[in-house]
Formats: sequence, structure tokens, C-alpha cells
Amino acid sequence: MRKNYLLTPGPTPLPPEICAAMSRPIIHHRTPQFQEVIKEVHEGLKYIYQTKNEVFMLASSGSGAMEAAAANLCSPGDTVITVEGGKFGERWTEIARAYGINCDVIKVEWGRAVEPSAIKDKLKSNPKIKAVFATLCETSTGVATDIRAIGEIVKDTEAVLVVDAISGLGAIDLQVDAWHCDVVVSGSQKGLMLPPGLGFISMSPKAWKVAENSKCPKYYFDLSKAKKAYDKVDTPFTPAITLIIALKEALNLMKADGLENVFSRHKKMADATRAAVKALGLELFAPGAASDVVTAAKVPQGIDGEKLVKAMRDTYGVTIAGGQDEMKGKLVRIAHMGYITEFDIITAISCLEKVLHQMGYKFQLGAGVKAAEEVFNA
Amino acid sequence: MRKNYLLTPGPTPLPPEICAAMSRPIIHHRTPQFQEVIKEVHEGLKYIYQTKNEVFMLASSGSGAMEAAAANLCSPGDTVITVEGGKFGERWTEIARAYGINCDVIKVEWGRAVEPSAIKDKLKSNPKIKAVFATLCETSTGVATDIRAIGEIVKDTEAVLVVDAISGLGAIDLQVDAWHCDVVVSGSQKGLMLPPGLGFISMSPKAWKVAENSKCPKYYFDLSKAKKAYDKVDTPFTPAITLIIALKEALNLMKADGLENVFSRHKKMADATRAAVKALGLELFAPGAASDVVTAAKVPQGIDGEKLVKAMRDTYGVTIAGGQDEMKGKLVRIAHMGYITEFDIITAISCLEKVLHQMGYKFQLGAGVKAAEEVFNA
Repeated sequence: MRKNYLLTPGPTPLPPEICAAMSRPIIHHRTPQFQEVIKEVHEGLKYIYQTKNEVFMLASSGSGAMEAAAANLCSPGDTVITVEGGKFGERWTEIARAYGINCDVIKVEWGRAVEPSAIKDKLKSNPKIKAVFATLCETSTGVATDIRAIGEIVKDTEAVLVVDAISGLGAIDLQVDAWHCDVVVSGSQKGLMLPPGLGFISMSPKAWKVAENSKCPKYYFDLSKAKKAYDKVDTPFTPAITLIIALKEALNLMKADGLENVFSRHKKMADATRAAVKALGLELFAPGAASDVVTAAKVPQGIDGEKLVKAMRDTYGVTIAGGQDEMKGKLVRIAHMGYITEFDIITAISCLEKVLHQMGYKFQLGAGVKAAEEVFNA
Repeated sequence: MRKNYLLTPGPTPLPPEICAAMSRPIIHHRTPQFQEVIKEVHEGLKYIYQTKNEVFMLASSGSGAMEAAAANLCSPGDTVITVEGGKFGERWTEIARAYGINCDVIKVEWGRAVEPSAIKDKLKSNPKIKAVFATLCETSTGVATDIRAIGEIVKDTEAVLVVDAISGLGAIDLQVDAWHCDVVVSGSQKGLMLPPGLGFISMSPKAWKVAENSKCPKYYFDLSKAKKAYDKVDTPFTPAITLIIALKEALNLMKADGLENVFSRHKKMADATRAAVKALGLELFAPGAASDVVTAAKVPQGIDGEKLVKAMRDTYGVTIAGGQDEMKGKLVRIAHMGYITEFDIITAISCLEKVLHQMGYKFQLGAGVKAAEEVFNA
């Protein structure tokens, strides 16, 4: 008789409408029936992306879509800018280097956001830079990047701006066209409230121009194939049919809510979560650049972060995330993204209090939940 | 009040156990709970593959797994053998060439299988050939390849044998180890009775040795990353969680049936389908090499194959496949694979008779169904 609560930054919980859609008999993908779904989903993705560009769907995780960006834009020997302030920023560097692309890396302390001026300086010093790879929300640290400011800088150069919006799309504002984001990559299992297995990638006209000269080998992730199929309301390879049908449902839910409401809901949950962990005496990991997607807080001294997360999950059924890589055991990360609500946040904070209490940490029971409620009821 | 019947060679229909599994709340992938699923699925895949090699799961369609094979084994400038006797054999050539790999192509007339001796001759004339890319069942023509005979040839050379078993795995016999198949690629939406979105690839020790020298760029499909994760009962990137949980159910269904029963069920359905279309006066497209996976038959002269397939689907809810590429409009392809049964075949033949009759084709109504029943009840 255990009830499970999922508050991880991917996968996020599934709305019942999505679960129901996933259980329906499968249909063939080259049928008028599925083409109707594709059409609707293409339009819905443009709405969520706030773009007029086409958004392509890939049967892959978000990392596959990241690779598609690098492989379609660059050639071996090109130089690009990457920003390493966490595990997913580092992934851009790893992908680029796998293709023989040189990375001019901007190292940022984990928990801080890149200064847009650092990107400006690098672009000035090397006008041959092909692309700037940035991360909307660095899931490993909870940091949000000022994509708008970076877009303003990159738009006046020859370089294209590539944004990993895997965490963040459909949770916080990202105005793909207005902010001059040339390529925006995302995934299904975060703000879009779906299981993992779908990647997304949008391409601006400037990105297509750059892509024309790309010499990286590619086949499955070749976006010229995706484009050709898109124009025929098709996909170049067998699509992840079930996930795309579920995506239609998710997009309908989000459209019914309206993007502004979606974003303000996420902001409120983030504010509440931050207030709660601070009230418990936990230090925010990214106080100056905290995203409204996932809150990272430092585990108090003397408390084993891995044990804390494990006890919440295995004893009480409340799954949050711990720290990754260099922050392993040192962080709790609570997602407030997708199909997570006010009362899920209350549950997570209450369970965090329960386990911290059991582990001997000194604080006033209820203080976290009280602080969250004050935000939610302000 | 229309009831739908799916008899396409991918996707194939989903058993209710799979639909139910797909609709369950999602769980996080880095948990002991999901690791239990991975462990069970790793073992189950070895059973279906009839191999001791590890079988890796990729969040991609089967084509992604095909690309993984080429990119992990070869280097630009290498020469490989490909066999083009249909759309999917051609895909091997396209993938290899995308990576700058030279293809020594064996052209085979559509509807025929490659002569193993042709591969032997090519391997003899060029001992530097890195790999032989073959297709277990060419979905576009219904042709089955004698993989066993090819394995006997390739095993005594430096080359590795790579088999596209996307159509066929879990439907017809493929003894990966006994037949010396070094790399075997598959997908979820055929014999495994799942929605599309999962790719599989097995690697023999010989394949790993060849892979060590590969210089093709890769990241998402880098199997050394997959291997490292596999050893920790993990995946290198966010896996297609829902599909993997459903795969566990599918493998359990297949294990309960037993591979021998699975194969003989497919054989019986294939025999019945072939008998039925012949009884209707349709010519088998691949009489000498017909697979037990999908039956391709020529549409009678004067009948528009595209209209035939469309009417069966749109008017009567029975979805079979037509011809692809050079055979567009000229074939019907009826799948007998995965969660398709005797009575689905009867339904498909009955509906084929109905529409042929309406289109003015002259034959004895009931002749196809009678012939199928005679096979099923022999």
C-alpha cells in the first residue's frame, strides 16, 4: 500500500490522459489517420517553441537530438563555443569533440550561469566561430541561462546559437524566434510530460544555411532527410508512433492551459520550493541563477545526501534526484516541471523534512511546508 | 462501429499485456526498480537472440541501430559488402556511404535472395573487406536470406557478418552464435510485438575487436558507451523507459510460448497465407525465397494495388501493406509476425477477397480462405 510520487527532472510524471493514450491499440504510421496526428503535433510544437521554424521529431533521447545539432551544423576542424557549468554543458563539448570539432570552452563554476559577455568576447576574438552551444536549464545544477541576452549577441555574428532546452521547454519561457535561437533541442520526458524516447530539434533559416556546408557524416540524424519527410507530413524512419500520439494529448493539455499559465505555475512552484528548502536551513546551490525548472539545494553538513534521497524513495515512495558527478551526495534536486503540482511539492518537502528529521538534522518540523504554503497562498 | 485489424510488417499489433504495461505510471530509470527490469530484459534478449553476446538497447528506430553497426565497426575508406535486393538492403549501402565507407554492392533482383557463393567470391577477391551487411528478411520483398550459409562463409575470414534482423527476430529462426552472426540489429515493432522506438544490437567478441580500430565519429550510437553502462545495469542516455518495461512483458510472453512454438506458429501462418493468395490466382513475388515473416504477392493485372490496399484499410479497417519504391502499386504484403494469429490471417484473406471481388477481379469467392483453412487444419 505504497503510493509513489515522482519529482525528478526527467522523467516527470505522466498525466492520466497520456497513460490512456499510450495504452491504445497501435496504428500504422503511413496512414491518413497518423498523418492527421503529425499535422496537429507539428503545429503544437511550433506553439510550444514559440517559433515559425519547423520542429523535427526524432526517435531518440534528447542527447540524440543534441548530436543531430552538432552533426548537421558543423564540419571537422570547425571551432565552436561550449559552456561547461554542469554535466549537460559538458555533453556539448563531448559531442562536438567526437566529430573532430574544436571547442573553445567557457568554464563556469557549477551553480553559476555563464556571463553573456564571456560569449561576446570569444565571438569577437574569433569571427570564424561556427556555433555557440548553450543550455537553457542545466539540470545537474538547477541553473538557468540568460538565453535572451546570448541571442542578442550571437544574432549579429556569423555563428548560430544552439540551445539545449531539454530541461525547460514547456516549463519556462523560451521565445525561440524573438530571442534569435537558431537551433533548439528538446526531449519528451520533461516539460512535455511524456515518457522518454522522443527528441525535438528546430532549425532557423540561418541554421539551414550553415548546415548546407556541414561535412560531418550522418544518416539517422540527417536533418535534410527529416525536412524532406516533414514536407510530406511523414518521418524519414519509423517514428515512435505511440509517443507521438501521446504528444498530441500533451500539447492539447498545454494549449488548453496557455503558455503564460504554464510558465507562471512553474514559477510559483519554484518560488515555493526555494522558500521551503531555505526555511529548512538548506543552502540553494544556484542562488543567483536558480531556474524555475528544478531546485538544487546543498545537503546540510553531516548528512549523507545519497542516503537521504534513497530513504525518501525506497522507504516513502517520494523520488527526487541527488547530485551528479562532482556534486554526487552533496545535493538534493527537486523538480517542479511538467505534471507536478503544488501538492506534489508539499509532499516532497514534507518527506524531505521526515527523513532529515530521522537522520538527526536539527530544524523545526513543518517549517519547510509552512514556507511553501506561504508562497502558494500569497 | 469499425473494428481495426493490423497486418503490416511493422508496426505489428500489441498484445493487451503490452498496452496495459504502456499505461502504467512512469518510474525513474536510475532506480533499483528499473535496474531489475533491465536485468530481466538483458537476459530475455539473449534468449531471443540465441546468443551469449550482450544485446544493447538504443532509444531509436531500427535504422539507428543499423547506423550504430556501421559507425562502430568501420572507418572511412574501408570496404564492405552490401546486398541490394530491396529497400532495406539498399539502406545498408546508404548508411555506409554516408560515413565514407566503400560498398562492394551485390545487386540482387527484387524478389530473389542473394547466393551465398556471391559473397564468398567477393570475400576471396578482396581479403581486406571489413564487413558483410546482410538482411535476414527483406521487408520490401518478403525474401528471407540464408544467413546460416553466409555465416559459414564469413566466419573463416577477417570480415564480420552484420545482420539486419529488424524484420524476423522473434519470428523466424536466427541462431546468432551457432550461425556466426557477429552483429545483429533489430527493432521493437515487429516480432517483439512492441511499438516502435527501441533498437537492439548484439556484438560478438570478433566484432568488438574490429570495433577497436573504428574511426567513424559517433556519440549517441557509440557502443563502447553502451557497453560501459551495460556492465553497470544502466544505459548511457535516458532510455525509452516505457518501451523497456513493455519489452519485459513481451519477452515473458515469448518465453512462456517457447522459441520453437513461436517459429512454428509463424511458419504455419506463412504457409496458409501463401496457399491462400495462390488459390486466389495471385503470384507470389518471392516463390523461391519467401520468408515466414511477410508474404508479398503480385497484384493481378488490371487491378490497382494502391486502391486495393487503401480500400481494405479505409473501408474495412484491415491494414496490410502495398509495394514500396519500384514495386509501388504492384504488390500486396501481408505480415504474419508477432501478435498476429490464424484468425487475423483468415480476416485479411477474407477482406482481400471482398475488395478484389468489388474491383471486378474474377475468382471463386472463398477460395483463399478455404486454402488457408486447409493449411491451418492439416
